[in-house]
Amino acid sequence: MKCRKCGGRAVLELRRHNTAFCAGDFLDFFRHQTLETIRRWKMLSRDEPVLVAVSGGKDSLALWDVLLEAGYTTAGLYIDLGIFDYSRESKARCQAFAAGRDARLIVVSVAEEVGAGIPQVKDVTRRPTCSACGLSKRYIMNRAALDHGFGVVATGHNLDDEAATLLGSTLRWDESSLARQTPVLEVTHPKLARRIKPLFRLSERETAAYAFLRGIDYIVEECPFARGATSISHKEVLNRLEDVSPGSKASFLLGFLERARPRFQAGESVDLRECLRCGQTTTGEVCAFCKLADQVRRAAPRSAVPLGSAALEPTDPAPLRGLAADLSAASEIHAS
Amino acid sequence: MKCRKCGGRAVLELRRHNTAFCAGDFLDFFRHQTLETIRRWKMLSRDEPVLVAVSGGKDSLALWDVLLEAGYTTAGLYIDLGIFDYSRESKARCQAFAAGRDARLIVVSVAEEVGAGIPQVKDVTRRPTCSACGLSKRYIMNRAALDHGFGVVATGHNLDDEAATLLGSTLRWDESSLARQTPVLEVTHPKLARRIKPLFRLSERETAAYAFLRGIDYIVEECPFARGATSISHKEVLNRLEDVSPGSKASFLLGFLERARPRFQAGESVDLRECLRCGQTTTGEVCAFCKLADQVRRAAPRSAVPLGSAALEPTDPAPLRGLAADLSAASEIHAS
Repeated sequence: MKCRKCGGRAVLELRRHNTAFCAGDFLDFFRHQTLETIRRWKMLSRDEPVLVAVSGGKDSLALWDVLLEAGYTTAGLYIDLGIFDYSRESKARCQAFAAGRDARLIVVSVAEEVGAGIPQVKDVTRRPTCSACGLSKRYIMNRAALDHGFGVVATGHNLDDEAATLLGSTLRWDESSLARQTPVLEVTHPKLARRIKPLFRLSERETAAYAFLRGIDYIVEECPFARGATSISHKEVLNRLEDVSPGSKASFLLGFLERARPRFQAGESVDLRECLRCGQTTTGEVCAFCKLADQVRRAAPRSAVPLGSAALEPTDPAPLRGLAADLSAASEIHAS
Repeated sequence: MKCRKCGGRAVLELRRHNTAFCAGDFLDFFRHQTLETIRRWKMLSRDEPVLVAVSGGKDSLALWDVLLEAGYTTAGLYIDLGIFDYSRESKARCQAFAAGRDARLIVVSVAEEVGAGIPQVKDVTRRPTCSACGLSKRYIMNRAALDHGFGVVATGHNLDDEAATLLGSTLRWDESSLARQTPVLEVTHPKLARRIKPLFRLSERETAAYAFLRGIDYIVEECPFARGATSISHKEVLNRLEDVSPGSKASFLLGFLERARPRFQAGESVDLRECLRCGQTTTGEVCAFCKLADQVRRAAPRSAVPLGSAALEPTDPAPLRGLAADLSAASEIHAS
C-alpha cells in the first residue's frame, strides 16, 4: 500500500477517506484535520489561551501535542480522580508529557474538592459511578478554567466517543442531551468557560496512531469502574456498522449536527443562576456538585472505610446499571 | 414459569413486560394489544372496511386473523411479486388462509401492473431491488384500496420492523423518512388511502408466537432478494440492545413518536398532485411507478431474458448495496 501523498510505503489505511498515508504524511493529515476543525467551527482564536483537559490517555495527550506544536498558548489540566493505580499512572503520564515539553500542568484532586476520591464517592451516592465522576470532572474543568484565567477548555473527545454518546442519547431520545451535543459548547453565562472538542472528526484509531507515531507515552488501561457495563457497547455497534460501510460513524454524527440538532435546540433554553454555596452555575439553588459534596460529608461518619483512605480496588466488573447512561459516561471518562 | 394471569403453565415469557403467559392468555394479550393500538391511535373506526395487505408471512396473517376475529369488515390484498417459488408459496398460504375463513382475497400481480415481475424489474432499473419492490407495493396497495372502495390499508409491520427502519433513518438522519415514520399515515390527498400498522407495538417474536399458537400456516422463508445485505442488520443490533436491556426497542420507537417526530414534521409539507399518466398522487408530473413501468417497457427489446418469462432464480447473495436502504426496505418486504 502506498502513501497517497508521497508514494512512499503507507503505514495506515483510512478506509472512510479511501486513502493511505506514510507516517509523516499521516501526522500532517492529523494536524491539518484538527486545526481545520478549530478554524471551521470557530473554536479558538489564534491568540486565545486554552486549558487542555488531559487524562493521560491517547486522545487528550494527542490533542495537547497538536496544540503545542501549532503554537497555541496552553496549559494542561489533570483531574486526579483518586482511582488507585489507574489515577497514579495516568497522572505520571501527564506529568512526564508536560515536563518533556516544558508545558504547564495544573493538577486538581477530586478528593480535595468533593471530600473524597471517586471510589468513596461511588459508595455514598446513588448516582452511577460514571455519572458522579463526569459531573465532578465537568465542574472542576470549568472552575479551574475560571480560576486560572482561561476562557476555553478543550477535551480530547474523538469521533468514536461522540458518535457513541449520540447513539445513546438517540436510543433514549433524550431531548436535552441531544440539544447539548456539540463540538463547541458556547458560553451562556459569564461563569462558564467555552468547551471545545477539536478531535471530534478524528477516529479513536487515528488518535491512537497519532500518539503512537509521535512516541507519546499514554495510559492504555481503561478506568476500572468503566468495565463491565461495556459488554455490549454502543462503540461496538458503531464499529460493526463502520466495517460494513466505512464513513457511517462520521455521517451519523455530522448529519446530526447539520440537520437534526437544530430541531432539538429549538425551544431549549435553560435559565442559569449562581449556586448559593460555590457561585458556579446551576439551574436550581445549590449546584449538583455541592449536593454531591454534601452527600460525601454526611456519609463520612457512617462510612466503614474512612474517606480519603485507600478503599479496596474493584476486582469484579460493576453490575449492569442503566446501559445507555453508563456507556455515554464511559466514553466521557475515556476522553476528557 | 407460571402464567401471570391464570397461574397455569406459561408458554411464553415477555421480558420487556416482565411477565409470562399460557397460550390462551397470550392470545388474549396479543388481541388486546392490537385492538388497543387501533383505538388509542385512532386507526380505524368500528365499521370502517379495511384492506389488509398480506404477504403470506406471520405478521400480516396474524393481523388479518385478529381483525377477522374482532369482527372488522376486511379483505386481504396479496401482491404477487413474481419472485419464483417464494411468491408461489406465499400466495398459496394467503389463499388457504382466506379460504379457511371464508374471507375475501384480492390478488394483484406486479407483472401485470408494471410489465414484469420483480426479478426482471431488478435487472432493468438502477434502483436497489428492495426499493423498486417497495415502491411497487406501496403504489399497488393504494390503488387497490381506491379501486375496491377501501379508505384504509393495514400492514403487518411489527415493532422490530419499525424500530429497524427508524434506526436506519436515524443513522442517516434522513429527515423526510423520519417525518413520515408513523403507525398511522394520514390522508393528505383524496387519492390516498390511510395506512395503518396495528402491530407496531408487538415484537416479531410475539407475532410468530401468535401465528404458531393459532395454527396459521405461514411462509417462513425470506424473500431471496433480501438475503446478503443483512449480514449485519439493524434488527440484529437492536436485538443485542434488547437482550441487555429489555424494552429498549419499544422505548426507542415510542420515544421517537412521542418526542422527536414532531420536530421532524415541522416544516415538512409535500405538495401532491395527480400523475399525468395514471392519476395517482405524485410530487412531480409523472409518478415514480409510471417511470419504473416505462423503464421496464424500454428495456424489454434489449433484455436477454424475455420479460414475463421465468428468469433465473438467484443463488448467490446480492452484493452489498447501500446498507441502510437495503435493510429498511428488507424489513418492509418482510412485513407488508
